[in-house]
Amino acid sequence: MTPAEDAQLALLLEVSGTPKPGNVDRERDFTDLRFDHFLAGAVGAGPGLRAAERGAPVGEAFEQAVAGMSQQEGGNTQFGALLLLVPLVRAAADGDLSPEGVARVVEDTTVEDAANFYRAFDHADVFVDDPPEDAEELDARRGSEAVPAVESRGVTLYDVMELGAESDDVAAEWTGEFERTFWAADRLAELSGSVPASALGARVYLELLAREPDTLVAKQHGAKTAESVRVRAQEALEGGPEVVEAFAESLVEDGVNPGTTADLTAAGLFVALARGEVSV
Amino acid sequence: MTPAEDAQLALLLEVSGTPKPGNVDRERDFTDLRFDHFLAGAVGAGPGLRAAERGAPVGEAFEQAVAGMSQQEGGNTQFGALLLLVPLVRAAADGDLSPEGVARVVEDTTVEDAANFYRAFDHADVFVDDPPEDAEELDARRGSEAVPAVESRGVTLYDVMELGAESDDVAAEWTGEFERTFWAADRLAELSGSVPASALGARVYLELLAREPDTLVAKQHGAKTAESVRVRAQEALEGGPEVVEAFAESLVEDGVNPGTTADLTAAGLFVALARGEVSV
Repeated sequence: MTPAEDAQLALLLEVSGTPKPGNVDRERDFTDLRFDHFLAGAVGAGPGLRAAERGAPVGEAFEQAVAGMSQQEGGNTQFGALLLLVPLVRAAADGDLSPEGVARVVEDTTVEDAANFYRAFDHADVFVDDPPEDAEELDARRGSEAVPAVESRGVTLYDVMELGAESDDVAAEWTGEFERTFWAADRLAELSGSVPASALGARVYLELLAREPDTLVAKQHGAKTAESVRVRAQEALEGGPEVVEAFAESLVEDGVNPGTTADLTAAGLFVALARGEVSV
Repeated sequence: MTPAEDAQLALLLEVSGTPKPGNVDRERDFTDLRFDHFLAGAVGAGPGLRAAERGAPVGEAFEQAVAGMSQQEGGNTQFGALLLLVPLVRAAADGDLSPEGVARVVEDTTVEDAANFYRAFDHADVFVDDPPEDAEELDARRGSEAVPAVESRGVTLYDVMELGAESDDVAAEWTGEFERTFWAADRLAELSGSVPASALGARVYLELLAREPDTLVAKQHGAKTAESVRVRAQEALEGGPEVVEAFAESLVEDGVNPGTTADLTAAGLFVALARGEVSV
């Protein structure tokens, strides 16, 4: 498979892993956000992922992927995952799918990439935290309206990610050589062979969740809740299937969605597939 | 979405509908054929489906789709579904997704299309019945070895389907204006809105199964078993969820796989999506 195909498959395997506490999965639909929406999101993201594979600028490919992903009625399904996958696909297509290779791709991003990143917010309703003080103009919720500020300040997409890296673990991947993505890929490779790839994904999702508080949960429910979810993920890992199931039920009841951890899982699955360490 | 994207989504929605008695679905893996394999099959079929959309000859697009589908370890996942989808995608791209429109596409197939159809068998291990007497040379199990016979006899792909139409309901669609495909699409449209698209697919799968014996079951287990499966599908429809579940369990236990009915379901989902009668 090509890098773009591996990325599309990674999106599908990620949502198919179950149980993935707090996220939509093969056995769990939310009321307005369902498994089917993620399938359509993965299909629709195809042209943008293929653009990245052909060497299109990261921002342009990302906007195209998000526009395609949004051709379904569930809203934001894979925005964060695509923000990780697009530079990873570029790195793979360039023949250097390594922490250094993807760091080079993201460090080379331009002001035009940043502008297209903001335009992507016009296509999907993405949960975003308040911007840092003195950066209100760059609030991602403004979408394409922020483009003039992006251009006048001359910020690249990498710069934008630096602004968010403290509070958002997708941005932190960009500025930190995709450390957790490659950690997840290594874990997937270690566990490979024991169960189907989607089940591996669910396992590594839980391991990621047990290691660091999910930043989407922190933004939506506060740092204390995010830390408590982390601790409970650790207990679920130690407790086995029934504890995991109970944990999953309680997160859904409380409306707690560790979405960033799901994004990291998709990125890890991509790296493991593209490296041939996990197969289907 | 484009016709090729609708086709890819139809493949994904089809396998995600549950319960789909006797077939792999979102909640049911077989030992060597799993949900993940169908996800990878749908991703891999993408380039062939896009070739059909761009107007490539049916046989060429089909062979490409099957080659792509086969980049996973489960074997034949969606061969029959692709044999329906490729001409349907062509018809949709030509702007006439109707029984007459797709009939025109399949009736226009050539000897070269037939040759590529046989080449597709080299990529996947497909269950095929014995050929009619006097047509041993055209046994599909010979794969590309049958190409010289195809060429010397001058048979088109439509001719090949006519040879199989009596015992194979995918072939019968080709020679019968895709009657059951459009029936399924109409049923999906009627039921639309009540449940997610994948669940609609599972419902219509059962209705298709209750109306006519599955030809793959007939080939593998005999006409009597196929008729008994049909009757039990009818009882399951009338009996509700618990009877459907019990039916599903017993088919898996007996190794009975109504795969042709799943192919027709995917084709019906495609038509309903492409016509905008079902949405995700």
